[in-house]
Amino acid sequence: MKNIRHIYYVSENTGLLAKDSGKSLLCQFPGVEFQEELLPFIRTKDDAQRTINAIREKCGEEKPIIFSTIFDPEINKILQHEDVILLNICEPFLTQLEGMLGKNALRASGHSRNVDQQIMSNRVDAIHYTISHDDGTAIMDYEEADLIIVGVSRSGKTPISVFLATQMGIKTANYPLVEQDLTFCQLPEDIIKNKHKVVGLSISPDVLHTFREQRYKGSHYAQMSTCKRETLQSKRIFEKYDLPVVFSDARSIEETATQVAQELSKQWNPIF
Amino acid sequence: MKNIRHIYYVSENTGLLAKDSGKSLLCQFPGVEFQEELLPFIRTKDDAQRTINAIREKCGEEKPIIFSTIFDPEINKILQHEDVILLNICEPFLTQLEGMLGKNALRASGHSRNVDQQIMSNRVDAIHYTISHDDGTAIMDYEEADLIIVGVSRSGKTPISVFLATQMGIKTANYPLVEQDLTFCQLPEDIIKNKHKVVGLSISPDVLHTFREQRYKGSHYAQMSTCKRETLQSKRIFEKYDLPVVFSDARSIEETATQVAQELSKQWNPIF
Repeated sequence: MKNIRHIYYVSENTGLLAKDSGKSLLCQFPGVEFQEELLPFIRTKDDAQRTINAIREKCGEEKPIIFSTIFDPEINKILQHEDVILLNICEPFLTQLEGMLGKNALRASGHSRNVDQQIMSNRVDAIHYTISHDDGTAIMDYEEADLIIVGVSRSGKTPISVFLATQMGIKTANYPLVEQDLTFCQLPEDIIKNKHKVVGLSISPDVLHTFREQRYKGSHYAQMSTCKRETLQSKRIFEKYDLPVVFSDARSIEETATQVAQELSKQWNPIF
Repeated sequence: MKNIRHIYYVSENTGLLAKDSGKSLLCQFPGVEFQEELLPFIRTKDDAQRTINAIREKCGEEKPIIFSTIFDPEINKILQHEDVILLNICEPFLTQLEGMLGKNALRASGHSRNVDQQIMSNRVDAIHYTISHDDGTAIMDYEEADLIIVGVSRSGKTPISVFLATQMGIKTANYPLVEQDLTFCQLPEDIIKNKHKVVGLSISPDVLHTFREQRYKGSHYAQMSTCKRETLQSKRIFEKYDLPVVFSDARSIEETATQVAQELSKQWNPIF
């Protein structure tokens, strides 16, 4: 039987940072199988005691590994049990930063990086804008967009747009290049007059073919010849208007979105 | 003049983890002002050299702090310059994990936690589903949803839904309680038959009033009395159908979304 290592992500808050950090480390060990569990909102000593009891009950032969972002020393003392391995991924750096900055850290529970009301409100507005300007909807409102992503159908515009709105508060419209645009190598007027915030999303014919086949198997739309023609025509449009281009092929949403944001930040700096 | 500390987030990949980790630490020092910059896709020794040159050029009196997630020892050697403070937030734990697991880590550049094709494809599908089932659209398709969020208008359903789809690949529909539902204390049939995946989103009248005023100032819809009545009526609906309820008041999208996912995971485990 294969040995499965139990992993727990424990946090005073959502645990998303503990999970992201842990996963980025664990994926460097492809030969090991991990079983992961997220345990968010551990805020009191009682929570911590219940957590450690539950983890110990499920213990196998090998000690489970806990990734924690908890600052509270009292809670950490409870989690630091001899039956588990506790990796506190914030504490060592917090101590270092205190030295560098010459200040004491708050070590405040629930003091999250995500609760600035203005930033929150911008993200919510960006999400609403992005959803109501998906797939070429309400093109006459593009004046208000921070970013307009242009590409052929199924090139991945929607996930990238939604990610940029949710994570970075960027109001992102996306526009699918339709037959008329492709044939006449011409963008609509509403896009041309906002050209400074347009990024082209490019994709290889093979990947496009695969994506379209998943949705509309055997259709003319999904045919390899159609995909080849459309990607070539879209390339000509990007060149004609001298648009920055990002390739979306077989990469994560995060990676493509970050590259799009980088292209945009050559005009301004939307990331912070 | 206030002293501003320069912060750089440097990564072989998107830098989102470096940024999230750094921000969670820096927000523990509210008295210090930071100026942050994201420098993603640092993948070669040349990239690293250009990066360190650019950072040194902008140096003020105090050494800039670099948060890095880079594993490559050659690249790290270049970033470890005497004019900067380099905090490598992965390396110490990677070394510890090697000891615990008895395996060598890959330390592979660009080996991201986000490129599993199946997980990627699930997230893309979830995003498309969520966008096309926002705000009560296509309620007859709720059979296919993983989760249905129900709440009054402007209670924050859309941002939560989009976050859950983007980050966790959960196909999330959301349904606004309309006048008829509220008056008759009755949910539509398509929701009742999917009751096991419904979570109610609750909000206080004050916060709801503020949100609605931002959009429709002075309207009957935004009036405090309307907000009080609707939140009370929605509470009765949640009670009548015995729905799990999450409060969205003045918290981050991440926090509310994680609580919704927790409620859902009492039925099954969608997070991993």
